[in-house]
Amino acid sequence: MQSEPAVDVGAARMIELGREECLALLAGVPFGRVGFTRQALPVIRPVNHLVDGGTVVIRMHPGSAMARHTTVDEVVVYEADDLDARGRTGWSVMVTGRASLITAPWEAARYRALLVPWTDRDVDEIVRIQADLVTGYRLTR
Amino acid sequence: MQSEPAVDVGAARMIELGREECLALLAGVPFGRVGFTRQALPVIRPVNHLVDGGTVVIRMHPGSAMARHTTVDEVVVYEADDLDARGRTGWSVMVTGRASLITAPWEAARYRALLVPWTDRDVDEIVRIQADLVTGYRLTR
Repeated sequence: MQSEPAVDVGAARMIELGREECLALLAGVPFGRVGFTRQALPVIRPVNHLVDGGTVVIRMHPGSAMARHTTVDEVVVYEADDLDARGRTGWSVMVTGRASLITAPWEAARYRALLVPWTDRDVDEIVRIQADLVTGYRLTR
Repeated sequence: MQSEPAVDVGAARMIELGREECLALLAGVPFGRVGFTRQALPVIRPVNHLVDGGTVVIRMHPGSAMARHTTVDEVVVYEADDLDARGRTGWSVMVTGRASLITAPWEAARYRALLVPWTDRDVDEIVRIQADLVTGYRLTR
């Protein structure tokens, strides 16, 4: 079992952030984590993303649980953060909203060009998450 | 809308990791993200953790959705990663299992001493997540 650093830098304060600041922070980082339910179990998957207007766009493996869910506009969560464990500073943003597959070929092609997959897995489905609910905080001292 | 870096470093391969390696990676980082359901909506929250045997131990705000869930041994997910967006390397680990409140005072006190909260919020509840299902991967080239 690991233990915390011996030097306690003191507790940080959590400052709530507004919607626009949250979306700007999200747009400034290349990846985050999508959370959804698969066979009644919660799942979290790191993926890279684009922020386009009030939506978060990600790529998914065709036939994956996430891609199947989006055919029924299931609500998912998308979280990104930039946290420094040593100094206990940074931020976290959480977007909650309906996910849907992008089916228009021209639109899917545009996002495929902008959103380069990290791995050699087939992630040709493009999923758009509506930023229906956006919350976030910054840790400060 | 931001775009990807102009230089494409090439796709990485995903190598699946075994349970013991996943738990060792998780034990080597100070924080991760817990995923659960609150009022039928998925939630992801960054928290710091300890790995103790086959369990992940975190602190929670008393009365929080997460703390209430754990009174019924709800299944939650815990994810941690160390990913380099530029080089597309790193790893991600996901633990899925039942979460339960630690109620024995001596045990809770021990974990409170080991697991120092990052913020000044009251996070006096100690939650143990059983590592019933452990999966993970490493990105490599």
